[in-house]
Amino acid sequence: MQRRCRYRRAARSEHDLTPLLFPFIHFSTTMTDHPSLDLATFAAQLRFDTIPPDVVERTVNLYVDWLGSALAGKGARPVETIAAFARRAAPGHGVGAGGVAEVLIDRTRTTPYFAAMVNGAASHFAEQDDVHNGSVFHPATVVFPVALALAQARGASGRDFITAAVAGYETGIRVGEFLGRSHYKVFHTTGTAGTVAAAATAGRLLGLSPQQMLDAFGSAGTQASGLWEFLRDAADSKQLHTGMAAANGLMAAELAADGFRGATRILEGAQGMAAGMSSDADPARLVDRLGERWATAETSFKYHASCRHSHPAADALLAVMGRERLGASDIARVTAHVHQAALDVLGAVVVPRTVHQAKFNMGTVLGLVALHGYAGVNEFEGGFDAAPVAAFRDKVEMAYDDEVERAYPARWIGKVTVTTHDGRRYAGRVDEPKGDPGNTLA
Amino acid sequence: MQRRCRYRRAARSEHDLTPLLFPFIHFSTTMTDHPSLDLATFAAQLRFDTIPPDVVERTVNLYVDWLGSALAGKGARPVETIAAFARRAAPGHGVGAGGVAEVLIDRTRTTPYFAAMVNGAASHFAEQDDVHNGSVFHPATVVFPVALALAQARGASGRDFITAAVAGYETGIRVGEFLGRSHYKVFHTTGTAGTVAAAATAGRLLGLSPQQMLDAFGSAGTQASGLWEFLRDAADSKQLHTGMAAANGLMAAELAADGFRGATRILEGAQGMAAGMSSDADPARLVDRLGERWATAETSFKYHASCRHSHPAADALLAVMGRERLGASDIARVTAHVHQAALDVLGAVVVPRTVHQAKFNMGTVLGLVALHGYAGVNEFEGGFDAAPVAAFRDKVEMAYDDEVERAYPARWIGKVTVTTHDGRRYAGRVDEPKGDPGNTLA
Repeated sequence: MQRRCRYRRAARSEHDLTPLLFPFIHFSTTMTDHPSLDLATFAAQLRFDTIPPDVVERTVNLYVDWLGSALAGKGARPVETIAAFARRAAPGHGVGAGGVAEVLIDRTRTTPYFAAMVNGAASHFAEQDDVHNGSVFHPATVVFPVALALAQARGASGRDFITAAVAGYETGIRVGEFLGRSHYKVFHTTGTAGTVAAAATAGRLLGLSPQQMLDAFGSAGTQASGLWEFLRDAADSKQLHTGMAAANGLMAAELAADGFRGATRILEGAQGMAAGMSSDADPARLVDRLGERWATAETSFKYHASCRHSHPAADALLAVMGRERLGASDIARVTAHVHQAALDVLGAVVVPRTVHQAKFNMGTVLGLVALHGYAGVNEFEGGFDAAPVAAFRDKVEMAYDDEVERAYPARWIGKVTVTTHDGRRYAGRVDEPKGDPGNTLA
Repeated sequence: MQRRCRYRRAARSEHDLTPLLFPFIHFSTTMTDHPSLDLATFAAQLRFDTIPPDVVERTVNLYVDWLGSALAGKGARPVETIAAFARRAAPGHGVGAGGVAEVLIDRTRTTPYFAAMVNGAASHFAEQDDVHNGSVFHPATVVFPVALALAQARGASGRDFITAAVAGYETGIRVGEFLGRSHYKVFHTTGTAGTVAAAATAGRLLGLSPQQMLDAFGSAGTQASGLWEFLRDAADSKQLHTGMAAANGLMAAELAADGFRGATRILEGAQGMAAGMSSDADPARLVDRLGERWATAETSFKYHASCRHSHPAADALLAVMGRERLGASDIARVTAHVHQAALDVLGAVVVPRTVHQAKFNMGTVLGLVALHGYAGVNEFEGGFDAAPVAAFRDKVEMAYDDEVERAYPARWIGKVTVTTHDGRRYAGRVDEPKGDPGNTLA
């Protein structure tokens, strides 16, 4: 933690021309040896006019993308169950009783806490919300529910909304990168890092001081949770993780505004998040080029409505089928060459029992792609378990691949080997799956 | 997980005389290889008439003891801050709007979710709520808030209340023992195991089936959180941990009643709680003599209003001072011979800054005991930082002791070495600190 970067906490002189000369850089003094504080300070002091215009534009697009995912949660059983719980827990909602924040799936209004909870749950259901590759973290589903709820509650400006969202993205992505790959093997990073991201978003909209933001991180981090175990049962926990990350992060920031103290080193401390939940955490990642590198703009849209770990192989299969003019019926076997995390997350599902579980089954995703050219919401809901899809599913295997593993998570390379019924073998490959910043959606 | 114990899930024949012959034992068939399910089944099927009378009586006493702790949270800043948050998040409380559960610190009523949250926070503030030695887990503060809130909401009988509380104690204690000592080094077991205990309590009052109880465990366990990092900052997280364990556990059970699915092996699964948060977990502990061993009755009352890890040494010091007729002013140095967990938890605090932090400082506890004969709520609040206490504090050191360590956590042995100003050295020892079942409070 001795590295230096441009960084500032004190107020800037009015005669300082730096903002005009370097509008993207507003950190100019030395970093401390306290990365949690550095990150909290960045989140608390982020100003709209220091965010590059392309990052602002990207954030607007990520918001619009998120709205679609949030609306797509309407009618989903786990989402509606959480919404029903929220209605029971805060029965006095409505505008006159603190109901100032909108629940998107039914346009009702409730308190920010429950709006964040329900919208956070809703927007992670379709598995089409955005993803940041390097942190393997889905920012939108924990950031925008909080930003929307508090912006509505406080009548915040669009600029404040965007600034708070960017604070959440920059924070959550760095926390996810910091927690590392050992963390992701067992923990759903969007639940854990997401709680801190939600706190950063809420804290920025509440106008927390750096010290208060650090308190918010403390209260958020000590509540960080989310385990992958649910995957093998087709259980509903994924929506619970994102809903509660949003709600708990919002709560943490509200408590901090009210003087509730949190651990000052919840991320990197000897009994903090990394100590308990990671074996390869790197504190330098928490403060990686704060104010210079805009991780928000590195975030990918999701083209297919499935677990991101299936996308590289899906696109590689599409590429080889297009190039060799193969139909699904020509194919006898597909090997998807994947990184270890894909095996960890997708390996739990063999025969999917629900639409949601099917999104974590490589064979189903490749079957939908081979048969329909796309694995979208309608393709899953219309026939994840249709006979041709199930038949294709059984032709698919995953195999660990060293090249893919070494590139991951900075790059998500897709590699497949396709064998036809008449014995031909083809290799398919994509270096950037569709939706990545270098191969973005139109 | 191949060991067998008497265990039953199927309905019993009306002609079965076993309940008459062995009223305490209602499990009589073979255990499965699925400890989460076995424990969930036990919690779901526990019946009042199978709980031994002395365990019932103990539970009543634990409840009364808990009420005192809950009321002692009144006025405490972290507790009042959480209560204020709850009022904002559910502003429509009051009997007509779902306000059926009582917040003890101000006698207002709100929904069960927030009553559990605030009472859970309140009852862990004075550091005088009960503790189970073997699991290093404080059951009352996460179990009774849920039992009270749902019993009030549903108009449950006293028998149902006690049965639900025992289900929570038996579950939480076994989960704490299962997670082991490696877990406790970083995680506040009362927050983590406590979430599952709260779910068991709520699930029993909601009348969940074994399968639904398993769902509740899944949703609770995937939200389990609580890190010790806050200790070194005198931060407020301890009340947040217990408040949220109670609230999240209650939520998990309510969701399960409504069909929300949880991971079926959240405790022992490959990506479950132990996989993520323990390196010495033992699944056999989860089902240790279910229905035969009543862990509820092993729970200790706390005599001193401080961290339990300080109690054995406090009592040992009192013993040697009484035996040798020493006053505080006679003492030049005290070495407390302790187990590793005491060093882990108490070692973070050198000079306490708040009353609450002082309860985690061995020197302050021994100073209060030496000067006042007792380290109670009034002693801490009246002068944890008074000059004589601070002077005594600086005479105290902790030293790792192998005998104490080996006995822990089944037995909490207290050992001190006292050196007087005139050079005498005395050893003090207690084998069961005051409040343990073998040395219980009058």
